Parts: sequence; structure tokens; C-alpha cells
Amino acid sequence: MPKFDFDIITLGHGSGGLLTQRLLQSGVFDVLKNDMLDQQHDGAILELNGKIAMSTDSYVISPVFFPGGNIGELAINGTVNDLAMCGAQAKYLTLAFILEEGLPITEFWEILVSIKEAALKAGVQIVTGDTKVVEKGKGDKIFVNTSGIGLVHPKANIHHNRIKPGDKIIISGPMAAHGIAIMSLRKGLEFETTIESDTRNLNHITQQLFDLFGANIHFMRDPTRGGVASVLNEVAGMTQLGYLLDQKQIPVDEQVEGACEMLGLDPLYVANEGIFIAIVNPLIAESFLYQLKKEKDFTSAAIIGEVVDEHHGKVLMKSRIGGRRVVNYLTGEQLPRIC
Amino acid sequence: MPKFDFDIITLGHGSGGLLTQRLLQSGVFDVLKNDMLDQQHDGAILELNGKIAMSTDSYVISPVFFPGGNIGELAINGTVNDLAMCGAQAKYLTLAFILEEGLPITEFWEILVSIKEAALKAGVQIVTGDTKVVEKGKGDKIFVNTSGIGLVHPKANIHHNRIKPGDKIIISGPMAAHGIAIMSLRKGLEFETTIESDTRNLNHITQQLFDLFGANIHFMRDPTRGGVASVLNEVAGMTQLGYLLDQKQIPVDEQVEGACEMLGLDPLYVANEGIFIAIVNPLIAESFLYQLKKEKDFTSAAIIGEVVDEHHGKVLMKSRIGGRRVVNYLTGEQLPRIC
Repeated sequence: MPKFDFDIITLGHGSGGLLTQRLLQSGVFDVLKNDMLDQQHDGAILELNGKIAMSTDSYVISPVFFPGGNIGELAINGTVNDLAMCGAQAKYLTLAFILEEGLPITEFWEILVSIKEAALKAGVQIVTGDTKVVEKGKGDKIFVNTSGIGLVHPKANIHHNRIKPGDKIIISGPMAAHGIAIMSLRKGLEFETTIESDTRNLNHITQQLFDLFGANIHFMRDPTRGGVASVLNEVAGMTQLGYLLDQKQIPVDEQVEGACEMLGLDPLYVANEGIFIAIVNPLIAESFLYQLKKEKDFTSAAIIGEVVDEHHGKVLMKSRIGGRRVVNYLTGEQLPRIC
Repeated sequence: MPKFDFDIITLGHGSGGLLTQRLLQSGVFDVLKNDMLDQQHDGAILELNGKIAMSTDSYVISPVFFPGGNIGELAINGTVNDLAMCGAQAKYLTLAFILEEGLPITEFWEILVSIKEAALKAGVQIVTGDTKVVEKGKGDKIFVNTSGIGLVHPKANIHHNRIKPGDKIIISGPMAAHGIAIMSLRKGLEFETTIESDTRNLNHITQQLFDLFGANIHFMRDPTRGGVASVLNEVAGMTQLGYLLDQKQIPVDEQVEGACEMLGLDPLYVANEGIFIAIVNPLIAESFLYQLKKEKDFTSAAIIGEVVDEHHGKVLMKSRIGGRRVVNYLTGEQLPRIC
């Protein structure tokens, strides 16, 4: 960490004047260094040609540090992944902070370093940014917005209207790790579990999958807030097809499942930050799964169900003991500020 | 306003589940309607070719409603203008909300309608978005992030390293209206003044100016937080040239000047949201000014100074009575949360 001549963030750091400059020049620009950011204009100039995906997310997770990560890498991975789910390789990101007066500079720095490392891993550049400061009690330590653009893979064609009955539903890894990692912290269960958030970028694996399977991948989405149940309900609503899941195929880590039981949570509704759902042509489903499972982060990937031409607009689950139940939308808020 | 089945924003509206859907489907998607947003994916797919500008800003202004506008149009105009200052015509915007639990839905709706109208005026499309909700007391009504991309005008070439001694410094209109409009509200002076924020888009006028003057426009920046003094100090620091202003040429409305005096503020440091500074080739300065003044929003435009090969890295002002003083960076925070 460089030597800052202040210990906490003050309102003046959001003034746009000398203190803002001092904050940025003390190390922020250095740590995020690249040719475009170095221009220090209010915007960046880029070259990009073709079909572009664009995405935005604000991150308000509490607490900002959690097992397996912090709000900084979450903010990079989250937007990188939203673009990946559009079939795109994230390329340029913007980064905007809303800091609460009093935030220790050491915490800000730790988050910034995570941002840098996550951006490096994902292969994206942060090209422009913004820093605002609000009074103590009008924010909560730090909120981060990242927005990004990237080129859509030439073979990708992701759209909910491409989903057909018979398509297979694939999940890339075990559910609910992120939500349970946060929830354990909040409920003070951290001493009992070693559950970590699954925050990771998904852009490298999805690019590989598009290379191999192209338009046979009909749809992709990362089940963040609201979990797998919410993503599939959204898709069911849009396509008016039925989505039939097989509970015994859905991967959940043992510790996570135990924590879910203890907390009375259904893992289907719990947030994830490092897995995706793919809905694919049944002809390539096994090959897709095979490729996915070859990668160390996705060894638990599984085919968890299929799209059917009944139960229109609904998600159903075949339970372990054979019954079927409707999996509804999350009706309230299970875990506020999970991302 | 459509019929919402709730009066205030609750944490559940940020769940990503049923309530989030209900909020968005009750009218948000309708009011912002366009082909790309209608996809309701986590990202949007666009076509764009060439040199692109990208920008982001979070808006945390307090109060969110103020004379002349609200946080919604500010958020659209602000990012549109940042792109305009890069020489670009804004085309696609993302929109991300951080709502505080308890925000009246009527206020949210009013802001949303302003966003729609400002986007329409500026000719930009909101292509994707995000909605988060934080607990009461962890935010302040509503924070808005907009990020945007646009095509750089083929003739534009804006860069601080293009500024040369002899260049003229032009301002597009009277200073300090936005900051004083907000400050008057906070200090309870609203009954005494009719000062309104100058929030407006600048992209149409700048496109016209790039059509006419192209690369003879060396630099452009909108003096928002920190005002004209901060922008010029930043530029002075980057170019290591001198920036000599002539106080009697700098337009300030009479009421604004009066309010500044009453509040003990120097208008050079007060925020603006609808003017820009252009640094141009002296050969075209008068024509540039003539074109600018033809437009009703820019009739007070003026040449306020020039770039000199002395006072390196500094901004100086020739006062009305002839003396010269250094115009420093704003050292503290004059008006927190002005944008």
C-alpha cells in the first residue's frame, strides 16, 4: 500500500478538487494503470467493432469483506459474467465508487487491489471511473458500480426465444455457496463453516464453450440474486415453456446444504456468483458437460433438467423421492444486499 | 403514473425475485421502452463500429429534487455530457439504481419519467439496468449510476496534449447556477431566489461545433464538481502551461453572483451541469463563439482567457481592477453531494 496522507475517506475526497486528485494520484491511478485510464479524462476513447454487449451492476454487498472475496472482485466478476452470459468477452469496464465518509483508507486500498487482480484475471481493462463521497450514515462503507462492454463471440446466439422443448438445462457447479458464505457471516456462524463465496469470472470458460458449441447454446444466465429458481422462473415467464428439474442431479456442497438446512433456506433461491445455467441443444448436452467438467472450477457441473412442452410458464422439480412440486419465484427478500 | 400495488420501496424490490419483477413490470420497462431494453437480459446487444467513447458517473445529489431538475435528468445529462466532452455523440446508456428502503414510489416514478424525457431529448437509449435496495439509513433515497458509450465524431480530436500557448479559453454560458440552486435549497434561501440548475445536454451543440471546427477544438470539459477553477487546474497540471483568465469576461448571472456573495462562495469553484469549457485554436475562436451564441442556451458564451507559455502549471486571473491572482484548486469540499 502506498503512503496516503490521510487514514479515512472524507467528504472532500468527493469534491472534484484537490483532495479528490490527491486520493486518485496517491495510488488509485497507479494500481489500475493502463493507457486509457492514464488519460484521466471524464471518458475513455476505445476501438471496438462489431456486435457489442453492454451491461451494468451496482454492488452493495454487506459486509464488504467476506470469506472468498470482497466487494471489489465481486464487482469485476459480476459485470464480466453478465457480459459472458450475453455471449460476449468483456473488454472495457468503468468503475464508480460511492464511498461513505469515514471509510478507512486501508479497506479502500484492499478493495482496489482486489479489483485490479480480478480485472487482470478476467482480462479486462478499467478505462474510466468516478468517485463520490456521501456523509456518514447516508451510505454503507462502499458501493461499487461497474459497467462494461465486450465483443459478442461470432458464433454465439443467446436469446430466450431460442429455447426449445427437449433442450437440456445444465448448471456449471454447486449452488448457493455465495449466499451461504454471506449469510453465515451475518448470522455469526462463521466459526462453524469454511464455506466461501464462489465469486469468479466465467468469461474464459464461456468463450471456450462458444468456440466449440456456438449457436447450439441457446441460453445462458448466471443465477445471482434470487438463485437458480428466479432465473428459471424469469425464463419460464418469457418463453411460456415448462422447466423440469431433477433434484437429485442438482449439485450442492455438503457443508452448504447443511447450512441451508440450519438456516431454513432452500438452496434453489440462494445467490451464486460463480456458476451459470446453460440451456442447450440436447444433441450436444453431454459433450458440453464433458468439456465443462474438464476445467477444475467446473468439475461438479451437471445436467439438472430439461425444457418441456407442458407446465407452460412454470418451473417444476422432481424431488429425490419422486414427487413433483412447483418452484415459484422468490416472493420476498431472503438475503438483502447479497451482491 | 401506473397503478403500483405498493407505496414505498422495500428490501424485497431488490431481491431479484418476484417483487423486483413486479416493480420493473409495473411500469419501469414500459416507460423506458426500446427494443434492446425489452430483451430484459442482464446485458444488451448493440451494433457499434469505430472509435468509441465510454464514461460513467454515479449521482448522489441531495436533495434529489431541486429547482430546474432532479437526480434523474442530471444522471442522463451528466453522462451524455461527459461523452460529448470526449468528442462523442452518446448513443447507449446503462442505468443502475441504489434505492433506500422506504423511498416513496411516487418519487421514484417522477425521477424515472425525467430520465425518460432527458434520454429522449439527448437522443440516447437506455439499454440495460440494475436495481438494488439498501436498508433505511444505509443510503439516501436514491443514488443513480449511468454509464454510456457513443461514437467519437470523425473530425473530433480532443486531448489535453493538443492545447497550445495562444489557444483561447471559451465558456459556453454563465457559471455556478447548478451549485447555487442546490446550495440555496440547503441553506433555506429558496424563497429569495429563482435560480435554477443549468442541467442540460450538451451533445447536440458539441456535434454541431465538431462539424464546423473539427480538430481546431483542442480540448473540452464540463466544469461540474469543483467548477471552472478545478477543471482548469487539472488541465494546467497535465499540460504544464499557464491559463490566464480575464475576470470581467466570465459570465455569471446577477442573481447567482448575489447568492455567491451572500454565501461567501467564489463562483469559479461552484458546480455547473450545463456549460462547457472549450480550448480552441485562436484562429477560429471568434467564429466558434459566434456559432455558439446563435443557440438560445448559449447566448452568454464568452472568450474568458487564453493559454500562455508562462505561469507553467498554474491558473491565473486578471481581476476586474487589473491585479492578477493565482486560482488554486479547491482544497476542501465546498458543497458535498452537488451531483
